[in-house]
Amino acid sequence: MANLFVRFLIGGLAVLAAIGYKNYRELSEPGQRPELDNNAYWGPELSKQNYKENKAILPYDISVNPEVIADLKSQLSRPLKLQAPLEGVGFEYGFNANELQKVVKYWRDTYLNKWGEREKYLKKLDHYQTEIQGLKIHFVHAKPSKEAIKKGKKVLPLLLMHGWPGTVREFYDFIPLLTAGSDKSDYVFEVIAPSLPGYGWSQGSSKTGFGVAQVAVVLRNLMVRLGFDKFVVQGGDWGSLIGSNVASLFPENVLGYHSNMCGNNSPMGRLKLMLSFAFPSWFGDEQNAHFYKGFGDFFVFIMEEMGYAHIQASKPDTIGNALIDNPIGLASYIAEKFSTWTNPAFKTLPDGGLTKRFTYDQLLDNIMIYYVTNSITTSMRLYSESMNKAQFALSVDSLPITAKTGCTRFAHELLHVPDGVLANKFPNLVHSTHQQDGGHFPAFELPQQLYEDFTAFVQKAEL
Amino acid sequence: MANLFVRFLIGGLAVLAAIGYKNYRELSEPGQRPELDNNAYWGPELSKQNYKENKAILPYDISVNPEVIADLKSQLSRPLKLQAPLEGVGFEYGFNANELQKVVKYWRDTYLNKWGEREKYLKKLDHYQTEIQGLKIHFVHAKPSKEAIKKGKKVLPLLLMHGWPGTVREFYDFIPLLTAGSDKSDYVFEVIAPSLPGYGWSQGSSKTGFGVAQVAVVLRNLMVRLGFDKFVVQGGDWGSLIGSNVASLFPENVLGYHSNMCGNNSPMGRLKLMLSFAFPSWFGDEQNAHFYKGFGDFFVFIMEEMGYAHIQASKPDTIGNALIDNPIGLASYIAEKFSTWTNPAFKTLPDGGLTKRFTYDQLLDNIMIYYVTNSITTSMRLYSESMNKAQFALSVDSLPITAKTGCTRFAHELLHVPDGVLANKFPNLVHSTHQQDGGHFPAFELPQQLYEDFTAFVQKAEL
Repeated sequence: MANLFVRFLIGGLAVLAAIGYKNYRELSEPGQRPELDNNAYWGPELSKQNYKENKAILPYDISVNPEVIADLKSQLSRPLKLQAPLEGVGFEYGFNANELQKVVKYWRDTYLNKWGEREKYLKKLDHYQTEIQGLKIHFVHAKPSKEAIKKGKKVLPLLLMHGWPGTVREFYDFIPLLTAGSDKSDYVFEVIAPSLPGYGWSQGSSKTGFGVAQVAVVLRNLMVRLGFDKFVVQGGDWGSLIGSNVASLFPENVLGYHSNMCGNNSPMGRLKLMLSFAFPSWFGDEQNAHFYKGFGDFFVFIMEEMGYAHIQASKPDTIGNALIDNPIGLASYIAEKFSTWTNPAFKTLPDGGLTKRFTYDQLLDNIMIYYVTNSITTSMRLYSESMNKAQFALSVDSLPITAKTGCTRFAHELLHVPDGVLANKFPNLVHSTHQQDGGHFPAFELPQQLYEDFTAFVQKAEL
Repeated sequence: MANLFVRFLIGGLAVLAAIGYKNYRELSEPGQRPELDNNAYWGPELSKQNYKENKAILPYDISVNPEVIADLKSQLSRPLKLQAPLEGVGFEYGFNANELQKVVKYWRDTYLNKWGEREKYLKKLDHYQTEIQGLKIHFVHAKPSKEAIKKGKKVLPLLLMHGWPGTVREFYDFIPLLTAGSDKSDYVFEVIAPSLPGYGWSQGSSKTGFGVAQVAVVLRNLMVRLGFDKFVVQGGDWGSLIGSNVASLFPENVLGYHSNMCGNNSPMGRLKLMLSFAFPSWFGDEQNAHFYKGFGDFFVFIMEEMGYAHIQASKPDTIGNALIDNPIGLASYIAEKFSTWTNPAFKTLPDGGLTKRFTYDQLLDNIMIYYVTNSITTSMRLYSESMNKAQFALSVDSLPITAKTGCTRFAHELLHVPDGVLANKFPNLVHSTHQQDGGHFPAFELPQQLYEDFTAFVQKAEL
């Protein structure tokens, strides 16, 4: 009874909120493509006057100056002054200081001693750079294997995008699967995996207003620069949102969109999401009901897990100042997400289950990319530039994606959105799956599983 | 019309939310004092077995080891790798890196060179320490002037409490006013200003569950230890909330409660606050209507200014790991609040208006106390321990404060709560004022003004 009352209450609240926002007619109308300058300049003002986009696509050397490594080692060798965790606590209060001590020790005494090997590993894939709209954009370019081509597989260009706090490092096991091809698939992929602008080796904007839609323009332009007028998009986290913006804004370029974190942020989508918390059966399939949580769990999730997004969206420079050139703080801040977002149950473990799905080497590779490029502040600005009135006013979220779409849901993803909620954003949702394992970083954690889902989508969609 | 609609909408939402939470009868009922162990032990488990509270009250030497200062100087001398702010931006994205560079230079080249003088200044007041419930608690003890006593002023003990990210340093100009007495007041004060447990020189808890109510018990016990069975309470920020808890839980000890940030977090108080956004005239006086903002401003405030509280309440150890032993990040994180909370209009200034109301020396004194005591993590844990189910279940907020109460509102305080909203929490609100200037740290910023308001309250209340 009480439960029913709460359902009606939440339903009522959602309806009221929706009415207050826009009327139903407006809500259900697809939006119009906003005016966006496809050639907007985002580099420093000083360089603007004589700026002529250098369209060359040049190999990029990701080598790190040995002085940076030596300095990092000396920073990691300072006596640690961490505050001991509260008694009996794992990761419930954030990154456990005892575990951090172990990470620092491994980083300093093991990882950095084999940095040459790690660097070699990171160079295994081919790195390039080109200039787009005033920004130097870095990307990994991996071509399909000759064997796959010989077997007559169809080659599709793929724009593959990471999110925060990720890097292209997440894709080092995933990309080889995509380029090798498999017996189960008629397709093989030519992969472009950019560092998002402001992330890793890609330059960040010097100007305000560089949000998710503007980033989408840059990365679409990158694909066109490389000669790919038609391509597939895959991503999670920001990669999913940027991909959704690319597919919304440039339907002429996108063959298909696949994401491991599909969402619908249109006004109608938000309303339906709220309603789905109260009436899950209206929107989802009964079989996978356990994937979809109620409003109470959603509220707890916002409270317990969204603090980072709140501060990054409002004060990215303050938290950036705290993390830049601060390897220990950076490792704690980033690696926390690879614990809790991989499986929330890891929060109760003293070591956050960090090595249950990743190795320290994997995690440190990713952290190193943020550290050596000093990119943490620019990476976090994407939150503030994407969550503000100017960005919302573009209403890209209200543009339906006409390209064929595939959505997969790994078990421990932060938030699952049922098909019924996705519907108005993705009228061409041809593939929708639920994985019984895995978390927020499936390309990194379960590359084979993500590969199989992705290729199943491509096959089904007949791209 | 639209405006009226929004008002009704918000009103409706608030009512629905309230009904969903508890019924009106329950809402309006005063709560019962919860069971709290007044002797709970919060120190490390290891020391517990043989623990016997050392009741001695000993002078405390706040001197900093010169090695710590030398090491700090060397840290501040590293080449700065801050990310340049976006073009044309002040403090809108958080602490501006150009201004931070200036702060670091001043800190390293000027402030630390006169550290001896600063330390002498901090020792101007008398520092003590005693053990309460397993924690070493530091406090400043300032006695009333002989002149004031000679003049026959009535002496009142005062528990004066700072908040986050403050320290006792906020009170260095305020305390001398309180102990000197003035011609306008018949009272003079014997001031006890503790470092909150886990802040500055006061030890933090080793155990979970040490929230605002538990801190209130410790600080009330401190006053009793010092022989003050009846005392006045004053505070802002956490000092206000802890003070409110002391006054709620120990009416037998509290003569009067004065705060520069009165709030009412009882269920009824929250409901009324929501309603006050839609119908301000129901709750406040017309004359000061400009102090009270609508729901839109409240929402923007939560979004733009509450990120720090969100992350500190959910992941205090992660953000603590990022700031401890990181002087530059710590300065940025703390000093941002002394910009934006002093006046939100300072956000548009390239230097955040930092020196409009404070000197670098004042701000750095406060930051130094966090730095040299490594207390940032323990200070931030107060958020997580106070904003959780166990703490809410105590329902201290539902206990009315019977002591005479004075509330003053400085113009730029984060959130103003009108008398009508405060009513059920403070049935004895005898003094309520609005200041046309000042922000969140009035003892630090406008000590004379706060002193006058405070003594006007004491006089009016005839304590």
